Formats: sequence, structure tokens, C-alpha cells
Amino acid sequence: MRVQVVIIGGGPSGLLLGQLLHRHGIEAVVLERKTRDYVLGRIRAGVLEQGFVRLMEEAGVADRLHREGIVHDGTLIAHDGGMFRVDFTEHTGVPVVVYGQTEVTRDLYDAREAAGAETIFEVEGVELCDLEGERPYVTFTAQGEARRIDCDFVAGCDGFHGVSRKTIPEDVRTEYEKVYPYGWLGVLSETPPVDDELIYANSARGFALCSMRNPGLSRYYIQCSLSDHPGDWSDDDFWTELKRRIPEEAADKLVTGPSIEKSIAPLRSFVTEPMRWGRLFLCGDAAHVVPPTGAKGLNTAASDVHYLYHALRQFYEEGDAEGIDLYSERALARVWKVERFSWWFSALMHRTADQSAFDLRMQRAELEFLADSKSAQAAMAINYVGLPY
Amino acid sequence: MRVQVVIIGGGPSGLLLGQLLHRHGIEAVVLERKTRDYVLGRIRAGVLEQGFVRLMEEAGVADRLHREGIVHDGTLIAHDGGMFRVDFTEHTGVPVVVYGQTEVTRDLYDAREAAGAETIFEVEGVELCDLEGERPYVTFTAQGEARRIDCDFVAGCDGFHGVSRKTIPEDVRTEYEKVYPYGWLGVLSETPPVDDELIYANSARGFALCSMRNPGLSRYYIQCSLSDHPGDWSDDDFWTELKRRIPEEAADKLVTGPSIEKSIAPLRSFVTEPMRWGRLFLCGDAAHVVPPTGAKGLNTAASDVHYLYHALRQFYEEGDAEGIDLYSERALARVWKVERFSWWFSALMHRTADQSAFDLRMQRAELEFLADSKSAQAAMAINYVGLPY
Repeated sequence: MRVQVVIIGGGPSGLLLGQLLHRHGIEAVVLERKTRDYVLGRIRAGVLEQGFVRLMEEAGVADRLHREGIVHDGTLIAHDGGMFRVDFTEHTGVPVVVYGQTEVTRDLYDAREAAGAETIFEVEGVELCDLEGERPYVTFTAQGEARRIDCDFVAGCDGFHGVSRKTIPEDVRTEYEKVYPYGWLGVLSETPPVDDELIYANSARGFALCSMRNPGLSRYYIQCSLSDHPGDWSDDDFWTELKRRIPEEAADKLVTGPSIEKSIAPLRSFVTEPMRWGRLFLCGDAAHVVPPTGAKGLNTAASDVHYLYHALRQFYEEGDAEGIDLYSERALARVWKVERFSWWFSALMHRTADQSAFDLRMQRAELEFLADSKSAQAAMAINYVGLPY
Repeated sequence: MRVQVVIIGGGPSGLLLGQLLHRHGIEAVVLERKTRDYVLGRIRAGVLEQGFVRLMEEAGVADRLHREGIVHDGTLIAHDGGMFRVDFTEHTGVPVVVYGQTEVTRDLYDAREAAGAETIFEVEGVELCDLEGERPYVTFTAQGEARRIDCDFVAGCDGFHGVSRKTIPEDVRTEYEKVYPYGWLGVLSETPPVDDELIYANSARGFALCSMRNPGLSRYYIQCSLSDHPGDWSDDDFWTELKRRIPEEAADKLVTGPSIEKSIAPLRSFVTEPMRWGRLFLCGDAAHVVPPTGAKGLNTAASDVHYLYHALRQFYEEGDAEGIDLYSERALARVWKVERFSWWFSALMHRTADQSAFDLRMQRAELEFLADSKSAQAAMAINYVGLPY
């Protein structure tokens, strides 16, 4: 079998890339380690930048997003008992859209099937071969059968733990990492969100986030210890702790209910350079991870997809390899900016055991500066709604 | 002897307070541990906020400052071989003024003498007594004679190591501190400044600052080890190292010459709360210290002087103690904002041994964000030119 592009990973970035390429006559196969249901069962972020929305439009899969997505013109930030708002549209002219990653993935799978594009699920033993030559190929087994697909290019959209990055020789890679000394305990519940907008809360007991997926589905998080397990936290424990960390006005309005999902995620910043090796291109979590504060993971995967999609079109439509040669540089330039924002916003909102009394006052002073200064709010808003591609 | 206010410390903040009070008929004596020549020999900062300039005008001592002070509408920031400019007047409508602290002090001493206001030099064994009562007094010896001055209020303008803060019982004070793992090696030389504006440089070899006092007097600094001594650095060593840390375009223009002063200062952030205890008011370094990055030390002392001067006028002219009662709260609100800025700007510009590869990339990303974003520049500029009193 031969195809122009093999996409490793059937998550939202791989699917979005496949759909964008398909619309321009570039054929791709998607290889996914798990089943479709498994992928759709993963609970992930739900705040989309305008750039992501535009890519979904370009891929022809934005109808439901436009119908069901909730436009957020700003966000609330709570600290020291009070709360202030950062207005996105005031500072940038654009809002963000709340629409769950699960829904994005579902829309993309539906479109992929409607287009008759091939996705191979439950692949095992994927190996990426001859990536430095002109005729790379991918081998794997699916349903017990050993297979090989020849291609022009491989897109590694298989996440932090995937095979793509690890295929690049270690002496070629430079990796940057920061592991944060805390995790996020997340609960999904079929309850109305506590507020129309998100509430990011810095409290003496640690960070909390009131988020949502839709008017009947709320997503809440609290900063927790890395040694905690979801089973350590009953629903009651979770709600009690959440209420302690958000302003009274919010806690009083909070509607609680049984959790339908409860999980703990560690927080990590990670970047590998370069993002291209021969005919392999890394996209999204395969190349970089951000802590979830500020919801940049999926959005930054999308900016990679943007650069790669345009690079491949330039190659196939114009015979010009410029975009391919500059892919890593262009993608990384934006990645580092997003890493900075996510790192800054995480440091601003969390409490850690090693913070001195002075450090805590600096954190408070920074929150107060953000509350008071339109310039500081603008500097935050332009990052939150998404830097230009 | 009886006077309304005893000012402990004959540095610029004590003198400025004395002069402002004198103009409104409030009599103060200044007690200084050293000689006038010693105080005038201290080399300190030279960048004045507009608020400082206005206080000097209000004190009637701004003529020479207006004649000789150099208006700076912006500053240059260098990193990774390049350089960008932050324009103060574009973002805030006001510039800063370069005029050495030595000159400020000289103008204030001249005015104090012209006014016939008393300054007692070389005082020893200062004790502040009965500060919690209505009739505090200060005892000390001067020229071998034991003396006592009765007063209404004591202004502690005697710096970080002075007696004033230490007079406040430890159980009343809360202290916040951060000691930075580096110092600044400063050189004063009778050479023309390398540029019309200041250059703050982040380099792989550590921070450097190209500053000035006047068109024929330059002040340069390089980040150094806390274990270094000025004698370890020959003039040649200093100039060679400075050139390595600033952009080539600046290094090529640098005019070197013999140092006329060379010293090392450690960097510290420090705040004590409260800034008032009974009838004692702390001003400036006696209550708070900032690292010198951003030149906030003298300027922040001046904002304390502003609040205290107005509080004392309100007390004497209107019989209203409101300003006195709110002094600590008002002064500290601004102090913490300035502490944040100085801490942020220091962290942005210096290199430390404990920075990981990821930390270094975050620092670079933040410099690049500042270089690219008008909002980030505005957020810096409003702090650099001085937050409102």
C-alpha cells in the first residue's frame, strides 16, 4: 500500500490534519493504537482558540461547533477572597469558544468516515522507517496481520508517549522539561456550570478551576498532591474542597452532583527540538506538552497542524519544499511563546510547599497587578485567545 | 530641645522629608551617623521617576535637576545578540530623569543649610524612646555630648541597617526577604556613556547594565559572584567582561577609562510590615529594599516620603490623624507593587547556576514576548516610570 502521508495517532490533531489534507486532495492514512470508542472516551480540554475554530471551518467540520460551542468573551480570576475579570474581546477583538475535545474528535471522525478516508485502529508495533530517505515507510500489525505502508511523509501526532518522537535518534534531539510538584484532580459532573465563564482560583489551599463543557456538563479541577489517587477522593470530599478554594459568591451558587469521571493528571512542560527529522514531522503532544492552565495543549497542536498542512500543500501543489524545511522553526517559534504563557499562568495560580512568605507576596502582587492593569490584562488576553499563527 | 519631627538619617529620603516639612512650617531635626562628606561620597542610583521630580519641585530644590537632569524617553534591552527598546512616553506619557542620587543629596543639603534647618552629624548611640506614647524622644551622643530631643514624631529614614526598624519589637514586625545568589560589580568612570539611553543586557555570561550620571560620567555594572571582591577585578578585566555581555554594536562604541569608583553590592528584596509603630514611621530602605534592577530604591523611598509628608501636614494643619493612621497601609500597597516589578525585572535579566535548560528558554521567551508585545511593554513602562502615589 502507498499513500502520500501516514498520520500516526487518531486524536484530534491527527484527524484535523487528515481532514485538512483530504480537502486539498492529499491522501493520508491514520493509524491509531486504540479503538475509536476509547479515543472518544478520553476527557480532555474544552477551550478553543479562534485559530482552532478557523481550522475546523477550513476542514469543513465546524457546523456543530458553531451551533453548540459557547462563546466566552472573558474569564474570571479569583484570589484572596475577591475576583476580577479579564475581558478577551476588549483587548483582542476575539473570544474563545468552549467546546469539548471529545466533541471535536467526534466531529472529525464523522467527517473522516463520510469522506471515506481510511483509519486503521488497534495498530501495534508501529515502526517508522527510512525517514531520512525519499521513500519512508511505516510497518505495524493490525488484526494480527503484519503490514507496511509506503509514503512521502509521516506526521507524528501520537502524543507524549508515542513512538514518533522516540524514533528520532537521541543525539539529534534536545529536550526541555519541567515537572510541576502537583497534579490536577478533575471531576466531570452533569450539573450546570457555576458561572457563565471559567473561574481560575488561587487560594491558600491550592488552585481550583471551574470549567464546563456545555450548559449541563461541568468540569471542575483542584490542585492535588502527586501522590493522590482519584479513589482517595470521594465526591463529597471533592466538592467540599472545591468550595473552600473558590470565592464565597461562587461556592454559594455551586451545584454539586455525582461525578461521572474523576481523574488526576500531572502537570508538565516539555519541548523537543527539532520538530522535523527527515520526512517525519512531530505535531502536538508528541513534540511539546504544556501544563493545562490556560488550555493550550489542543490549541498548540492545532497551530502545528496549521504549519504542517500549509507546508504539505506548498509541496504538493507548488513543488516547493520551503514550508517543509521551515516547519520546525515556525512551529517552535510559536510553541515557545505558548510554553511561556502556560508556565507563567501556572506559576501565578498554584501554591507549592517551597514558596517562601516573600514568594507568596510576589504571587499576590502579580495577581493584584493583573487585576489593576489594563496592559497586564491585554498581555494575558492576547495569549489566552491565541497568538497569531 | 524640642522639635515636631526627628528624622533619623541624613540620606536623600530624610533630607527630602525635612525639606518638604520645612516648606510647610513643620520643623524637623535630622540626625546623621556619618559626616556630610561621607554621605555625599556614596555612589547610588541615578534614575528618577516623575513622582520624585515633582517632590523635589514641591520641596523647592529642583532647579539644578531640571537644568542638568537628562530626560530618558525609553530604555534598551539586549538579549541573545539583539536589542529592543521600550518607549516610556509612548506608553505612559512620561519619561524618567537621569540625575545622580549624589546630586539629589547635595541639592537637598544646600537647601537645608540655606533654610537654616538643623542637621546633627556624627551622632552615635541613637535610641528612640516612648514611641508608643504621645511624647516620644530621641537620645544620642554627638561630639562627646549626651543629648535628648523631645518630639511629636520620629521618621526612620536610616536605611536597612539603621536603628529605626530594629526599635520596633520583633513580635510586632513581619519580615519578608529574598536574597539573590549574585551581586552587582559597579564601576564609575569619567567617560561618555555608550548610549543616550540605558542598556539592560541579559547575556549567557550574566547581566550587565550600561548606565550614566551625566554626559561625562558613566556607570556600568556586571552581575558577579557574591564571593567576588572589587579588588579581584582590574579595570581591564571589568571592561573586557562588560564588552562580552553587551551587543556588539554597543561594545564597539564603548569608551573605557580608569574607574574612579568600583564596588560590589548584593541584591536583596526585603519588606517589613507594618511601616508605622506608634509615633515612629519607617521610610525607604529602613522598611524595604529592592534589587537595583529598574532603579526603584530611591524612588520608592520618595513615595514613602510623599505619604508621610502629607500625613504630617494633615495632622498639623487640620488636626486630622487619618493620614498617620493609614500611612503604613498606603505606603505598603505601593511598596509591594514595586517589589514585584523589581523582582520580576531581576529574574528576567540575570542568569543563575540553578536555571535549567527549560528555565533559560522561559527567560528567553519572556524577553521575546516583551520585545514583540506592546501590551507587555506598556506593563513594564508603567512600572518603570513609576506607579501613581
